[in-house]
Amino acid sequence: MKKLTIGLFGFGTVGEGLYQVLQKSKTVDAQIKRICVKNPNKKRRVSADLLTTNAEDILGDPEINLVVELIDNAEDAYSIVKTAMQRGKSVVSGNKAMLAVHMAEMIELQKQHGVALLYDASACGSIPVIRNLEEYYDNDLLTSVTGILNGSSNYILTKIFQDGETYEKALKEAQDLGFAESNPSFDVDGFDSLFKLIILTVHAFGVIIPPEDVFNFGISNLSDFDINYAKEKGRKIKLVARVGKVDDDTITLYVMPRMLTPNLYIYSVEEEYNGVVIRGQFYDKQFMFGKGAGALPTGSSVLSDITARFHDYRYEYKKYNSPQAPKYTTDNLIKVYLRYRNVNDFEHFRFAEISEKYTSNDYCYVVGKIRLSNLLSIKSLLPKLDIFLAAMS
Amino acid sequence: MKKLTIGLFGFGTVGEGLYQVLQKSKTVDAQIKRICVKNPNKKRRVSADLLTTNAEDILGDPEINLVVELIDNAEDAYSIVKTAMQRGKSVVSGNKAMLAVHMAEMIELQKQHGVALLYDASACGSIPVIRNLEEYYDNDLLTSVTGILNGSSNYILTKIFQDGETYEKALKEAQDLGFAESNPSFDVDGFDSLFKLIILTVHAFGVIIPPEDVFNFGISNLSDFDINYAKEKGRKIKLVARVGKVDDDTITLYVMPRMLTPNLYIYSVEEEYNGVVIRGQFYDKQFMFGKGAGALPTGSSVLSDITARFHDYRYEYKKYNSPQAPKYTTDNLIKVYLRYRNVNDFEHFRFAEISEKYTSNDYCYVVGKIRLSNLLSIKSLLPKLDIFLAAMS
Repeated sequence: MKKLTIGLFGFGTVGEGLYQVLQKSKTVDAQIKRICVKNPNKKRRVSADLLTTNAEDILGDPEINLVVELIDNAEDAYSIVKTAMQRGKSVVSGNKAMLAVHMAEMIELQKQHGVALLYDASACGSIPVIRNLEEYYDNDLLTSVTGILNGSSNYILTKIFQDGETYEKALKEAQDLGFAESNPSFDVDGFDSLFKLIILTVHAFGVIIPPEDVFNFGISNLSDFDINYAKEKGRKIKLVARVGKVDDDTITLYVMPRMLTPNLYIYSVEEEYNGVVIRGQFYDKQFMFGKGAGALPTGSSVLSDITARFHDYRYEYKKYNSPQAPKYTTDNLIKVYLRYRNVNDFEHFRFAEISEKYTSNDYCYVVGKIRLSNLLSIKSLLPKLDIFLAAMS
Repeated sequence: MKKLTIGLFGFGTVGEGLYQVLQKSKTVDAQIKRICVKNPNKKRRVSADLLTTNAEDILGDPEINLVVELIDNAEDAYSIVKTAMQRGKSVVSGNKAMLAVHMAEMIELQKQHGVALLYDASACGSIPVIRNLEEYYDNDLLTSVTGILNGSSNYILTKIFQDGETYEKALKEAQDLGFAESNPSFDVDGFDSLFKLIILTVHAFGVIIPPEDVFNFGISNLSDFDINYAKEKGRKIKLVARVGKVDDDTITLYVMPRMLTPNLYIYSVEEEYNGVVIRGQFYDKQFMFGKGAGALPTGSSVLSDITARFHDYRYEYKKYNSPQAPKYTTDNLIKVYLRYRNVNDFEHFRFAEISEKYTSNDYCYVVGKIRLSNLLSIKSLLPKLDIFLAAMS
């Protein structure tokens, strides 16, 4: 156990809460020495001596042995985290976009410079999923990880399904409550879930997959027709991220809305909560559940990462370093619901199998099976079409 | 990572499943070299060369570097685990009764002989609660751990509440399914939950409390009157174990039935499942849920402990070794429901406060507050009285 001298980047609600908690902590000997902020003129409840706008005041300070990065911008975060590690400092970061894109380099930098990078705060807010996948579900038995990973889109869907609110009103509420990112597309189009899924996959199966190679589709195309369809069938629509084994040697992953039946654990995950179901041989399924968005839950997992550094913890990337890591495939069939208006749109999808078809003068839908690779090849096209797509479980 | 050469004690369903899985594991280099069984004449699906009835064939074998203890008897387990550690072998054990009673010595033996003892299998079957409390909820924020820790009594209560079965029939079913221990009192009178709670408290708050100093009361006195009372109030009765902070410096714990309202996560934990709610500042509450009884879930957590040893993991007992560990108190009031027939029985309880009272020619009940120390002082008397006691949440 060594004393932690912390340089903090970003001083929003999370940063401030963290500062207060560390001040009175009895179990962690950690002190925030310097805080780098963008806007020096904003009024803040902290001594002005601590504040700086110059990153070098932290990165160049040899006494600072832990950098905590809590800023929004992925590119700035990348440069801060990289430089910190190159200068021999360990880092705690919650920046999923940055981590998902640069994971291989981040692992390499840790090895090269003998430092640690912890980022439990980057996925599922306060639920310790990454660490459990790395440490506990650390053997051949794991078969899939399925979860609601984005608190803000889940909040929106809850308001729509429970309270009959419009999409726009629910989104506005989520933003007002501080659950939604500044760019809503990040949440509602499934990018946030996608980046988190990429990170979870590294620790679940030891595989790094570039985000652009994974299919993601969000909830912004959701219409009343789809909501009514789900309700009539006794289902709820939630935005689900999933990685799972296809066979012993391959895994597949996607982010998309899913029509959930009430018997599934994640059916009951409402509002800004996250829930993750971990399936394996022997233990069948386990469920972890907790607050997934908001400053305080994020703050608590940042604190857990800081405490872990106090005890010299690091991710070992055991599965990533194992020669048996599985291969990624998209050559598998997924059962989906597709709502569309124009036959032209429908034809993009090239269904392998159709089990139900409904047509009307308004909207049409099909339920059937489609190859994931097909979906991936038209991924950028989908948000522009008048369609909605959801996995059927 | 070192090769594990395992000596196994006990070869029931868990032991056999474990043997099969390790045979085909790709991620753990572990081999079971010897299996010590009680009855050498029982037919078993394993080469006879592996079997022995002489513990010394394992404990005296210098090549064996990990002892996995899966036997029922707590005294035998104690002697095996102790001797193994004294001879420099690390141990995986699931024996909660042994661990709860001998925890201080078990920690000391690990330190003295530089070995590790892992026992995630001892509490909550497949849910990694111990490791999460030790590693992740490892700071001042934790305020309480509340859970359904005994799969077999929960199975019985589910059958009674959902299917209207009698206590006797439900108990018989639980035993037939292999959920119940050979001595049902261990499960239904709350001893199993108590031992698990003692173990969780070590890793949650760093305090070792002798089991006899903690109040436990089970479900064997449950009557139709109590079941009807709960149903009328829209509640379910479950056997709950709880440890929580009273203030910054003290904790309190108990095991007893609790009248649960539907808004609580553990209200929905049914059949042989276990569920644990971890509460803390910042993250509010987290819920972990999974199978809590049965051979396979137990087997999976034993395997996780073996895998952890493969990566040289050990419990650090960070909170136990911290000078700030809180004190244990029973000087706190708990709100309870007490059903009784005789006023003499009622008077044992010395209620501090009564908010409801019901009398009839059949049964009477009160709802009120009682000091936990009072309950503890009459703990051995309670099962013999014609009463039922449950915490009101």
